[in-house]
Amino acid sequence: MNGQLCCYDCGRTYGIDDRSRCSCGEPLWIETDPSDFEWPDAEWSRGMWRYADVLPVSEPSGVPPGTTPLVRADRLDEYAGCSLSLKHEGQNPTGSFKDRGSAVGVSYAARAGYEWVGTVSHGNMALSTSAYAANAGLECAVFVPADTPAERLELIARHDPHLFRVEGDYGQLYHETLALEADVAFVNSDTPFRVAGQKTVAYEILEQCSPETPDAIALPVSSGGQASAVWKALRELNRAGLVDDVPRLYLVQAAACDPVATAYREGCASVSPVTAGDTIAVSIANSDPPSGTRALAAARDTGGAVVSVPDAEIRDAMDRLSTTVGVSVEPSSAVAIAGIRTLSQSGAIEPDDDVVAILTGSGYKERYETDVRSRTIDLDGLERELGAIVG
Amino acid sequence: MNGQLCCYDCGRTYGIDDRSRCSCGEPLWIETDPSDFEWPDAEWSRGMWRYADVLPVSEPSGVPPGTTPLVRADRLDEYAGCSLSLKHEGQNPTGSFKDRGSAVGVSYAARAGYEWVGTVSHGNMALSTSAYAANAGLECAVFVPADTPAERLELIARHDPHLFRVEGDYGQLYHETLALEADVAFVNSDTPFRVAGQKTVAYEILEQCSPETPDAIALPVSSGGQASAVWKALRELNRAGLVDDVPRLYLVQAAACDPVATAYREGCASVSPVTAGDTIAVSIANSDPPSGTRALAAARDTGGAVVSVPDAEIRDAMDRLSTTVGVSVEPSSAVAIAGIRTLSQSGAIEPDDDVVAILTGSGYKERYETDVRSRTIDLDGLERELGAIVG
Ligand SMILES: [Zn+2]
Ligand SMILES: [Zn+2]
Repeated sequence: MNGQLCCYDCGRTYGIDDRSRCSCGEPLWIETDPSDFEWPDAEWSRGMWRYADVLPVSEPSGVPPGTTPLVRADRLDEYAGCSLSLKHEGQNPTGSFKDRGSAVGVSYAARAGYEWVGTVSHGNMALSTSAYAANAGLECAVFVPADTPAERLELIARHDPHLFRVEGDYGQLYHETLALEADVAFVNSDTPFRVAGQKTVAYEILEQCSPETPDAIALPVSSGGQASAVWKALRELNRAGLVDDVPRLYLVQAAACDPVATAYREGCASVSPVTAGDTIAVSIANSDPPSGTRALAAARDTGGAVVSVPDAEIRDAMDRLSTTVGVSVEPSSAVAIAGIRTLSQSGAIEPDDDVVAILTGSGYKERYETDVRSRTIDLDGLERELGAIVG
Repeated sequence: MNGQLCCYDCGRTYGIDDRSRCSCGEPLWIETDPSDFEWPDAEWSRGMWRYADVLPVSEPSGVPPGTTPLVRADRLDEYAGCSLSLKHEGQNPTGSFKDRGSAVGVSYAARAGYEWVGTVSHGNMALSTSAYAANAGLECAVFVPADTPAERLELIARHDPHLFRVEGDYGQLYHETLALEADVAFVNSDTPFRVAGQKTVAYEILEQCSPETPDAIALPVSSGGQASAVWKALRELNRAGLVDDVPRLYLVQAAACDPVATAYREGCASVSPVTAGDTIAVSIANSDPPSGTRALAAARDTGGAVVSVPDAEIRDAMDRLSTTVGVSVEPSSAVAIAGIRTLSQSGAIEPDDDVVAILTGSGYKERYETDVRSRTIDLDGLERELGAIVG
């Protein structure tokens, strides 16, 4: 479609590139002929609940997660060493992939008659669970480490949960909450209802790629819950006859905290806890992942691998995403891109492989030190200053 | 669908609510029968480009804006005084409605051979235009007021534009950039290509409500560009025979800076600049709106109105959204909700009216002072401390 510019007020028309305002002084807009327009199918508006047939609860009210974009990132192909596509999960309601699992888990809790839901998280999952609990009218208990920064607590507190700042072993807390007798439905990172919801990201990726199937899917791994969910979806779709060649699952961790990658590298049958160092990928720094062994099985079963990457490469991948694809992600998401590069360099991923990276969370929720290209100018010098740069 | 829990490893099964882990120690997931599953239509994956037939450019690469949720917010009906639905534009790629217009404007610039795009903004539009320019491989010039906080500049700088901090009259700058001879395609807030993209939000709302039509649509107004875009869409859909009863457009401003509301209240034919005070709704504090008169025409033509609301009511609406609907928005978006309440109290909106509020931007990109309900506990006291609150 092309068109011409017209004035809503006096009706004068102009060429599409002609001028910024009408001669009458009013702003212009583009003339459109909508005569052949019809509504497309609006099923998309249900978000991930389009897949209700394979979910353990039916559609609740509230903001549906899902229908996030899948885009080719050809400007990163050379860097990534493959044909790279991005699944941008930061566009979910609270800015991360966690909403898919929270929606299912909270909905189940509400229908089962619980008045409380709970979770053990100081990041995306805490924010997401609190938001879905607010929507369902449930109380929410969030357990965070006692040293969680005030800035992050304020973000979670928007949705008014009860925050418990816990002194003691945070990894142990994960299991203890699930063993509690209290009348609280915990939706932790690898609990079945969360995994059921999280799997819809893989359904969407395969739907968006259909009739092709990607060669591989890469994602960060922390608790192992999300890797489990993606694996589960692939198994289901394979069984349904919708995916014949199951994509290889590549799981990526930050080098400073990589228990699953260590177990993979050392050929272990199960994942053991590690002593973690510091990393900018705070959301995935889980030194004792409750579904680590299941994640390891997912990588092996699909012919994939588990690797880890240093912080400098994570930061580089994060900057490339924002400056060449226009997508700002948190460091934990950039891990997947850095991992793909590592896997290409080792030959595990080949140049003609179609690889989908799951970008788990938006980068806009936290501050990162960023170089700013700026200059102060005077309005009078506008044309000169701009011309000096544009040339 | 319901199901049972099973272990991926040993295959043992359990009741849906039975236990958190398998007796073998591994985590459980929910058994699913996908045998009747088929792919839904994947047209949604094009985002707003599903409407390419009524847009001035065809589909570019990059993250598509659109397909944002529309949800009923029945828990706010009493507060709002009507049947309230929310169009959550904060779920666009850079967290605001501006992506729709940036995608069209930047795509046009790229195809027309420009190497530079530009914009005059210190908020959502600056971030959005920079991101879409990065994706298209174009340079981007962003003009911000010299006193823009460093925190906001760092956010925009993620996508590496050239930032010009301008000393002087910022309202005048808007017009001067559009008059420049430089080879820069400016995509300011009411330029035709931006308006063309922005209109897709109204297409989506009407598609999502179809076969019903909402009685009214409420949105914040700043430059008037977005109000113009929504009006344009309604006119097109009416002409296409898809919308017979055009919804009333209610435009809302912050009381401290309300030139359009003032013109409406005083029965003026056009909008005049005002002297602005401070407001928390910084994104819409435009004291000399370039499409103000067009916005005024949109409200009058559709039988709507323009009102303004004080900061205390904006903050209250914002908190209600995050604690009862689970949606965090910026203050400028909450303005629409506060305005609906005002219009209900005056009788302009009636209890059985279906009203859609456009929530223009995510609240997660900035910090706001928030009350935090937290207590520090020791891991040993977990059960006692939780029990004391849950009861
Ligand atoms: Zn005119
Ligand atoms: Zn087992």
